[in-house]
Amino acid sequence: MIKKGLFITFEGADGSGKSTQLKMAADYFKAKGFDVVCTRDPGGTALGSKIREILLHHDGKIATYCELFLYLADRAQHIEEKILPALEEGKTVLCDRYVDSTLAYQGYARGLDKEQIMKLNDIVAKSLMPDITFVFDVSTEIAEKRIGKTKDRLESEAADFHRAVRSGFLNLAQEYPDRIKVIDASQDINKVHYDTKEILDNYL
Amino acid sequence: MIKKGLFITFEGADGSGKSTQLKMAADYFKAKGFDVVCTRDPGGTALGSKIREILLHHDGKIATYCELFLYLADRAQHIEEKILPALEEGKTVLCDRYVDSTLAYQGYARGLDKEQIMKLNDIVAKSLMPDITFVFDVSTEIAEKRIGKTKDRLESEAADFHRAVRSGFLNLAQEYPDRIKVIDASQDINKVHYDTKEILDNYL
Repeated sequence: MIKKGLFITFEGADGSGKSTQLKMAADYFKAKGFDVVCTRDPGGTALGSKIREILLHHDGKIATYCELFLYLADRAQHIEEKILPALEEGKTVLCDRYVDSTLAYQGYARGLDKEQIMKLNDIVAKSLMPDITFVFDVSTEIAEKRIGKTKDRLESEAADFHRAVRSGFLNLAQEYPDRIKVIDASQDINKVHYDTKEILDNYL
Repeated sequence: MIKKGLFITFEGADGSGKSTQLKMAADYFKAKGFDVVCTRDPGGTALGSKIREILLHHDGKIATYCELFLYLADRAQHIEEKILPALEEGKTVLCDRYVDSTLAYQGYARGLDKEQIMKLNDIVAKSLMPDITFVFDVSTEIAEKRIGKTKDRLESEAADFHRAVRSGFLNLAQEYPDRIKVIDASQDINKVHYDTKEILDNYL
Protein backbone atom coordinates (compact mmCIF):
# COMPACT_ATOMS: atom_id res chain seq x y z
CA MET A 1 0.00 0.00 0.00
CA ILE A 2 1.07 3.58 -0.50
CA LYS A 3 0.27 5.52 2.63
CA LYS A 4 -0.57 9.08 1.69
CA GLY A 5 -2.45 10.45 4.71
CA LEU A 6 -1.23 11.33 8.19
CA PHE A 7 -1.79 8.83 11.01
CA ILE A 8 -1.97 10.45 14.45
CA THR A 9 -2.70 8.65 17.71
CA PHE A 10 -3.99 10.04 21.00
CA GLU A 11 -2.78 8.23 24.11
CA GLY A 12 -3.06 8.60 27.84
CA ALA A 13 -4.97 7.39 30.86
CA ASP A 14 -8.76 7.38 30.98
CA GLY A 15 -9.57 10.80 32.36
CA SER A 16 -6.59 12.43 30.61
CA GLY A 17 -8.90 14.23 28.20
CA LYS A 18 -7.43 12.52 25.12
CA SER A 19 -10.80 11.85 23.47
CA THR A 20 -11.84 15.51 23.86
CA GLN A 21 -8.48 16.62 22.48
CA LEU A 22 -8.91 14.26 19.52
CA LYS A 23 -12.20 15.97 18.66
CA MET A 24 -10.66 19.44 19.00
CA ALA A 25 -7.72 18.40 16.80
CA ALA A 26 -10.16 16.98 14.24
CA ASP A 27 -11.97 20.33 14.06
CA TYR A 28 -8.62 22.07 13.64
CA PHE A 29 -7.67 19.78 10.72
CA LYS A 30 -11.11 20.16 9.12
CA ALA A 31 -10.87 23.96 9.34
CA LYS A 32 -7.60 23.67 7.43
CA GLY A 33 -9.36 21.65 4.71
CA PHE A 34 -8.10 18.18 5.61
CA ASP A 35 -10.32 15.13 5.09
CA VAL A 36 -10.38 13.64 8.60
CA VAL A 37 -11.34 10.19 9.93
CA CYS A 38 -11.77 9.90 13.71
CA THR A 39 -11.62 6.40 15.09
CA ARG A 40 -10.79 4.41 18.22
CA ASP A 41 -8.81 1.35 19.28
CA PRO A 42 -10.48 -0.92 20.28
CA GLY A 43 -13.89 -0.57 18.62
CA GLY A 44 -13.23 1.28 15.36
CA THR A 45 -15.26 -1.20 13.29
CA ALA A 46 -18.58 -3.05 13.67
CA LEU A 47 -16.70 -6.23 14.57
CA GLY A 48 -14.36 -4.24 16.82
CA SER A 49 -17.31 -2.82 18.78
CA LYS A 50 -18.18 -6.37 19.83
CA ILE A 51 -14.58 -6.96 20.94
CA ARG A 52 -14.55 -3.61 22.78
CA GLU A 53 -17.71 -4.59 24.63
CA ILE A 54 -16.00 -7.77 25.87
CA LEU A 55 -12.81 -5.91 26.85
CA LEU A 56 -14.48 -3.10 28.75
CA HIS A 57 -17.52 -4.81 30.21
CA HIS A 58 -16.99 -8.58 30.53
CA ASP A 59 -18.09 -9.60 33.98
CA GLY A 60 -15.36 -11.91 35.25
CA LYS A 61 -11.62 -12.43 35.03
CA ILE A 62 -10.07 -12.21 31.57
CA ALA A 63 -6.87 -14.24 31.09
CA THR A 64 -3.91 -11.93 30.38
CA TYR A 65 -3.18 -13.37 26.93
CA CYS A 66 -6.87 -13.46 26.08
CA GLU A 67 -6.99 -9.72 26.74
CA LEU A 68 -3.86 -9.06 24.67
CA PHE A 69 -5.05 -11.17 21.74
CA LEU A 70 -8.48 -9.52 21.76
CA TYR A 71 -6.84 -6.07 21.43
CA LEU A 72 -4.69 -7.37 18.58
CA ALA A 73 -7.63 -9.06 16.84
CA ASP A 74 -9.49 -5.76 16.97
CA ARG A 75 -6.46 -3.95 15.55
CA ALA A 76 -6.05 -6.39 12.66
CA GLN A 77 -9.64 -5.76 11.58
CA HIS A 78 -9.42 -2.01 12.21
CA ILE A 79 -6.29 -1.53 10.10
CA GLU A 80 -7.46 -3.67 7.19
CA GLU A 81 -11.04 -2.42 7.08
CA LYS A 82 -10.69 1.22 8.04
CA ILE A 83 -7.28 2.76 8.79
CA LEU A 84 -5.25 1.63 5.75
CA PRO A 85 -7.98 2.36 3.18
CA ALA A 86 -8.39 5.88 4.64
CA LEU A 87 -4.63 6.55 4.62
CA GLU A 88 -4.38 5.26 1.05
CA GLU A 89 -7.05 7.79 0.05
CA GLY A 90 -4.92 10.52 1.62
CA LYS A 91 -7.18 11.07 4.62
CA THR A 92 -5.89 12.17 8.01
CA VAL A 93 -6.64 9.42 10.54
CA LEU A 94 -6.93 10.40 14.22
CA CYS A 95 -7.07 7.35 16.46
CA ASP A 96 -8.02 7.21 20.15
CA ARG A 97 -5.38 4.74 21.51
CA TYR A 98 -3.16 2.37 19.50
CA VAL A 99 -0.09 0.20 20.10
CA ASP A 100 1.34 2.45 22.84
CA SER A 101 -1.70 1.67 24.97
CA THR A 102 -1.02 -2.04 24.50
CA LEU A 103 2.57 -1.49 25.61
CA ALA A 104 1.55 0.69 28.58
CA TYR A 105 -1.38 -1.43 29.81
CA GLN A 106 -0.49 -5.03 28.89
CA GLY A 107 3.29 -4.49 28.94
CA TYR A 108 4.18 -2.00 31.69
CA ALA A 109 1.11 -2.51 33.89
CA ARG A 110 0.27 -6.24 33.40
CA GLY A 111 3.91 -7.24 33.06
CA LEU A 112 3.86 -8.96 29.65
CA ASP A 113 7.10 -8.89 27.69
CA LYS A 114 7.20 -5.66 25.66
CA GLU A 115 9.33 -7.07 22.83
CA GLN A 116 6.85 -9.91 22.45
CA ILE A 117 3.98 -7.40 22.35
CA MET A 118 5.73 -5.44 19.57
CA LYS A 119 6.37 -8.63 17.56
CA LEU A 120 2.73 -9.67 17.88
CA ASN A 121 1.60 -6.14 17.04
CA ASP A 122 3.75 -6.14 13.90
CA ILE A 123 1.96 -9.28 12.72
CA VAL A 124 -1.49 -7.69 12.88
CA ALA A 125 -0.50 -4.07 12.17
CA LYS A 126 1.62 -4.86 9.11
CA SER A 127 4.18 -2.57 10.78
CA LEU A 128 1.91 0.48 10.50
CA MET A 129 3.10 3.01 13.07
CA PRO A 130 1.73 6.52 13.72
CA ASP A 131 3.42 9.61 12.28
CA ILE A 132 2.77 11.47 15.53
CA THR A 133 1.59 10.19 18.91
CA PHE A 134 0.35 12.49 21.66
CA VAL A 135 0.54 11.33 25.24
CA PHE A 136 -1.81 13.40 27.40
CA ASP A 137 -0.13 13.13 30.76
CA VAL A 138 -1.98 13.69 34.00
CA SER A 139 -1.56 12.43 37.55
CA THR A 140 -3.50 9.31 38.53
CA GLU A 141 -5.35 11.36 41.16
CA ILE A 142 -6.63 13.96 38.67
CA ALA A 143 -7.57 11.25 36.13
CA GLU A 144 -9.48 9.34 38.80
CA LYS A 145 -11.46 12.47 39.73
CA ARG A 146 -12.33 13.19 36.09
CA ILE A 147 -13.60 9.66 35.41
CA GLY A 148 -16.19 9.85 38.16
CA LYS A 149 -18.01 6.88 39.64
CA THR A 150 -19.08 4.87 36.58
CA LYS A 151 -16.00 2.89 35.61
CA ASP A 152 -15.36 0.20 33.00
CA ARG A 153 -13.27 -2.95 33.63
CA LEU A 154 -9.92 -1.24 33.07
CA GLU A 155 -10.82 2.01 34.79
CA SER A 156 -11.69 -0.11 37.83
CA GLU A 157 -8.11 -1.36 38.26
CA ALA A 158 -6.23 -0.20 41.39
CA ALA A 159 -4.28 3.08 41.56
CA ASP A 160 -0.95 1.20 41.32
CA PHE A 161 -2.04 -0.20 37.97
CA HIS A 162 -2.84 3.29 36.68
CA ARG A 163 0.49 4.60 37.97
CA ALA A 164 2.28 1.82 36.08
CA VAL A 165 0.33 2.76 32.93
CA ARG A 166 1.29 6.41 33.32
CA SER A 167 4.99 5.71 33.81
CA GLY A 168 4.77 3.27 30.90
CA PHE A 169 3.61 6.05 28.58
CA LEU A 170 6.36 8.36 29.84
CA ASN A 171 9.00 5.66 29.30
CA LEU A 172 7.72 5.09 25.76
CA ALA A 173 7.99 8.83 25.08
CA GLN A 174 11.64 8.73 26.15
CA GLU A 175 12.24 5.70 23.94
CA TYR A 176 10.61 7.23 20.84
CA PRO A 177 11.11 11.00 21.23
CA ASP A 178 10.69 11.74 17.50
CA ARG A 179 7.25 10.15 17.36
CA ILE A 180 5.78 10.59 20.84
CA LYS A 181 5.04 14.05 22.25
CA VAL A 182 4.00 14.42 25.88
CA ILE A 183 1.52 17.16 26.75
CA ASP A 184 0.70 18.30 30.27
CA ALA A 185 -2.98 17.41 30.43
CA SER A 186 -3.53 18.79 33.90
CA GLN A 187 -3.76 22.23 32.27
CA ASP A 188 -6.91 23.98 31.09
CA ILE A 189 -8.54 22.17 28.15
CA ASN A 190 -7.86 25.06 25.74
CA LYS A 191 -4.21 25.30 26.76
CA VAL A 192 -3.86 21.55 26.13
CA HIS A 193 -5.38 22.06 22.68
CA TYR A 194 -3.02 25.00 22.07
CA ASP A 195 0.01 22.81 22.91
CA THR A 196 -1.32 20.08 20.61
CA LYS A 197 -1.81 22.54 17.74
CA GLU A 198 1.69 23.90 18.17
CA ILE A 199 3.18 20.43 17.68
CA LEU A 200 0.90 19.76 14.71
CA ASP A 201 1.82 23.08 13.08
CA ASN A 202 5.52 22.32 13.47
CA TYR A 203 4.97 18.92 11.89
CA LEU A 204 2.88 20.24 8.99
CA MET B 1 0.90 -27.18 36.97
CA ILE B 2 0.86 -30.95 37.26
CA LYS B 3 -1.41 -32.36 34.57
CA LYS B 4 -3.05 -35.50 35.88
CA GLY B 5 -6.05 -36.02 33.60
CA LEU B 6 -6.24 -37.06 29.96
CA PHE B 7 -6.75 -34.38 27.32
CA ILE B 8 -8.43 -35.67 24.16
CA THR B 9 -9.45 -33.56 21.15
CA PHE B 10 -12.01 -34.30 18.45
CA GLU B 11 -11.23 -32.84 15.04
CA GLY B 12 -12.69 -32.92 11.58
CA ALA B 13 -14.89 -31.00 9.20
CA ASP B 14 -18.33 -29.74 10.18
CA GLY B 15 -20.57 -32.65 9.27
CA SER B 16 -17.92 -35.24 10.14
CA GLY B 17 -19.90 -36.32 13.21
CA LYS B 18 -17.11 -35.33 15.64
CA SER B 19 -19.46 -33.69 18.17
CA THR B 20 -21.70 -36.78 18.27
CA GLN B 21 -18.63 -39.00 18.67
CA LEU B 22 -17.39 -36.77 21.49
CA LYS B 23 -20.67 -37.35 23.37
CA MET B 24 -20.51 -41.12 22.77
CA ALA B 25 -16.87 -41.20 23.96
CA ALA B 26 -17.88 -39.17 27.05
CA ASP B 27 -20.53 -41.76 27.92
CA TYR B 28 -17.97 -44.52 27.45
CA PHE B 29 -15.53 -42.81 29.83
CA LYS B 30 -18.28 -42.12 32.38
CA ALA B 31 -19.36 -45.78 32.30
CA LYS B 32 -15.77 -46.68 33.17
CA GLY B 33 -15.91 -44.32 36.17
CA PHE B 34 -13.92 -41.41 34.79
CA ASP B 35 -14.76 -37.83 35.74
CA VAL B 36 -15.35 -36.23 32.34
CA VAL B 37 -15.47 -32.59 31.17
CA CYS B 38 -16.86 -31.99 27.68
CA THR B 39 -15.97 -28.66 26.13
CA ARG B 40 -15.47 -26.90 22.81
CA ASP B 41 -13.02 -24.59 21.06
CA PRO B 42 -14.07 -21.86 20.48
CA GLY B 43 -16.76 -21.17 23.05
CA GLY B 44 -15.84 -23.28 26.08
CA THR B 45 -16.25 -20.39 28.54
CA ALA B 46 -18.74 -17.54 29.03
CA LEU B 47 -16.27 -15.10 27.46
CA GLY B 48 -15.47 -17.63 24.74
CA SER B 49 -19.14 -17.91 23.80
CA LYS B 50 -19.07 -14.22 22.87
CA ILE B 51 -15.96 -14.80 20.74
CA ARG B 52 -17.57 -17.87 19.13
CA GLU B 53 -20.63 -15.82 18.24
CA ILE B 54 -18.40 -13.31 16.38
CA LEU B 55 -16.43 -16.06 14.62
CA LEU B 56 -19.39 -18.08 13.43
CA HIS B 57 -22.00 -15.40 12.84
CA HIS B 58 -20.37 -12.00 12.19
CA ASP B 59 -22.03 -10.50 9.15
CA GLY B 60 -19.18 -9.15 7.03
CA LYS B 61 -15.59 -9.91 6.13
CA ILE B 62 -13.26 -10.79 9.00
CA ALA B 63 -9.58 -9.94 8.45
CA THR B 64 -7.47 -13.12 8.38
CA TYR B 65 -5.35 -12.17 11.38
CA CYS B 66 -8.39 -10.92 13.28
CA GLU B 67 -9.92 -14.38 12.86
CA LEU B 68 -6.71 -16.12 13.96
CA PHE B 69 -6.24 -13.89 17.01
CA LEU B 70 -9.87 -14.34 18.06
CA TYR B 71 -9.44 -18.13 18.06
CA LEU B 72 -6.25 -17.75 20.10
CA ALA B 73 -7.84 -15.28 22.55
CA ASP B 74 -10.63 -17.78 23.12
CA ARG B 75 -8.08 -20.56 23.68
CA ALA B 76 -6.07 -18.53 26.20
CA GLN B 77 -9.21 -18.01 28.29
CA HIS B 78 -10.43 -21.59 27.83
CA ILE B 79 -7.16 -23.17 28.96
CA GLU B 80 -6.67 -20.92 31.97
CA GLU B 81 -10.27 -20.92 33.18
CA LYS B 82 -11.42 -24.44 32.34
CA ILE B 83 -9.07 -26.97 30.71
CA LEU B 84 -5.99 -26.71 32.97
CA PRO B 85 -7.95 -26.64 36.26
CA ALA B 86 -9.88 -29.76 35.16
CA LEU B 87 -6.71 -31.62 34.12
CA GLU B 88 -5.04 -30.66 37.41
CA GLU B 89 -7.97 -32.23 39.26
CA GLY B 90 -7.42 -35.45 37.29
CA LYS B 91 -10.49 -35.04 35.09
CA THR B 92 -10.66 -36.34 31.52
CA VAL B 93 -11.17 -33.39 29.18
CA LEU B 94 -12.82 -34.03 25.81
CA CYS B 95 -12.61 -30.99 23.55
CA ASP B 96 -14.46 -30.36 20.29
CA ARG B 97 -11.67 -28.83 18.12
CA TYR B 98 -8.32 -27.41 19.27
CA VAL B 99 -5.02 -26.34 17.69
CA ASP B 100 -5.26 -28.79 14.77
CA SER B 101 -8.37 -26.95 13.58
CA THR B 102 -6.41 -23.70 13.65
CA LEU B 103 -3.67 -25.34 11.58
CA ALA B 104 -6.15 -26.91 9.15
CA TYR B 105 -8.46 -23.90 8.71
CA GLN B 106 -6.22 -20.85 9.16
CA GLY B 107 -3.01 -22.59 8.04
CA TYR B 108 -3.82 -25.08 5.27
CA ALA B 109 -7.06 -23.49 4.04
CA ARG B 110 -6.44 -19.72 4.56
CA GLY B 111 -2.73 -19.98 3.79
CA LEU B 112 -1.24 -18.51 6.98
CA ASP B 113 2.22 -19.74 7.92
CA LYS B 114 1.85 -22.93 9.99
CA GLU B 115 5.03 -22.43 12.01
CA GLN B 116 3.85 -18.95 12.95
CA ILE B 117 0.47 -20.37 14.01
CA MET B 118 2.21 -22.94 16.24
CA LYS B 119 4.40 -20.25 17.81
CA LEU B 120 1.38 -18.05 18.51
CA ASN B 121 -0.55 -21.04 19.82
CA ASP B 122 2.30 -21.91 22.20
CA ILE B 123 2.05 -18.41 23.69
CA VAL B 124 -1.61 -18.78 24.62
CA ALA B 125 -1.71 -22.56 25.19
CA LYS B 126 1.34 -22.66 27.45
CA SER B 127 2.43 -25.59 25.24
CA LEU B 128 -0.54 -27.74 26.32
CA MET B 129 -1.04 -30.37 23.63
CA PRO B 130 -3.61 -33.21 23.59
CA ASP B 131 -2.69 -36.75 24.62
CA ILE B 132 -4.83 -38.14 21.81
CA THR B 133 -6.45 -36.36 18.85
CA PHE B 134 -9.09 -38.01 16.70
CA VAL B 135 -9.60 -36.79 13.16
CA PHE B 136 -12.98 -37.89 11.87
CA ASP B 137 -12.38 -38.01 8.16
CA VAL B 138 -15.16 -37.77 5.64
CA SER B 139 -15.42 -36.55 2.05
CA THR B 140 -16.41 -32.92 1.51
CA GLU B 141 -19.52 -34.10 -0.34
CA ILE B 142 -20.79 -36.28 2.53
CA ALA B 143 -20.00 -33.54 5.10
CA GLU B 144 -21.89 -30.98 3.01
CA LYS B 145 -24.97 -33.24 2.85
CA ARG B 146 -24.90 -33.82 6.62
CA ILE B 147 -24.69 -30.09 7.46
CA GLY B 148 -27.90 -29.29 5.61
CA LYS B 149 -28.99 -25.82 4.60
CA THR B 150 -28.40 -23.72 7.72
CA LYS B 151 -24.72 -22.91 7.65
CA ASP B 152 -22.50 -20.72 9.79
CA ARG B 153 -19.78 -18.40 8.43
CA LEU B 154 -17.15 -21.12 8.08
CA GLU B 155 -19.50 -23.81 6.86
CA SER B 156 -20.50 -21.39 4.10
CA GLU B 157 -16.98 -21.35 2.60
CA ALA B 158 -16.59 -22.89 -0.89
CA ALA B 159 -15.95 -26.63 -1.45
CA ASP B 160 -12.26 -25.95 -2.28
CA PHE B 161 -11.82 -24.44 1.17
CA HIS B 162 -13.30 -27.53 2.81
CA ARG B 163 -11.12 -29.82 0.67
CA ALA B 164 -8.05 -27.86 1.83
CA VAL B 165 -9.19 -28.26 5.45
CA ARG B 166 -9.62 -32.00 4.98
CA SER B 167 -6.22 -32.52 3.40
CA GLY B 168 -4.78 -30.29 6.13
CA PHE B 169 -6.07 -32.64 8.83
CA LEU B 170 -4.71 -35.67 6.94
CA ASN B 171 -1.28 -34.00 6.56
CA LEU B 172 -1.24 -33.23 10.28
CA ALA B 173 -2.03 -36.88 11.04
CA GLN B 174 1.00 -37.93 8.97
CA GLU B 175 3.14 -35.37 10.74
CA TYR B 176 2.08 -36.42 14.26
CA PRO B 177 1.19 -40.15 13.93
CA ASP B 178 1.64 -40.88 17.65
CA ARG B 179 -0.88 -38.26 18.70
CA ILE B 180 -3.36 -38.02 15.82
CA LYS B 181 -5.57 -40.97 14.86
CA VAL B 182 -7.67 -40.79 11.70
CA ILE B 183 -11.04 -42.54 11.73
CA ASP B 184 -13.17 -43.17 8.66
CA ALA B 185 -16.24 -41.13 9.54
CA SER B 186 -18.20 -42.09 6.43
CA GLN B 187 -19.05 -45.34 8.24
CA ASP B 188 -22.12 -46.03 10.37
CA ILE B 189 -22.16 -43.93 13.56
CA ASN B 190 -21.78 -47.01 15.81
CA LYS B 191 -18.86 -48.37 13.79
CA VAL B 192 -17.15 -44.96 14.10
CA HIS B 193 -17.68 -45.13 17.86
CA TYR B 194 -16.32 -48.70 17.91
CA ASP B 195 -13.14 -47.56 16.11
CA THR B 196 -12.78 -44.66 18.56
CA LYS B 197 -13.18 -46.98 21.58
CA GLU B 198 -10.60 -49.39 20.22
CA ILE B 199 -7.99 -46.62 20.07
CA LEU B 200 -8.97 -45.38 23.54
CA ASP B 201 -8.75 -48.91 25.01
CA ASN B 202 -5.29 -49.39 23.51
CA TYR B 203 -4.22 -46.08 25.02
CA LEU B 204 -5.67 -46.79 28.46
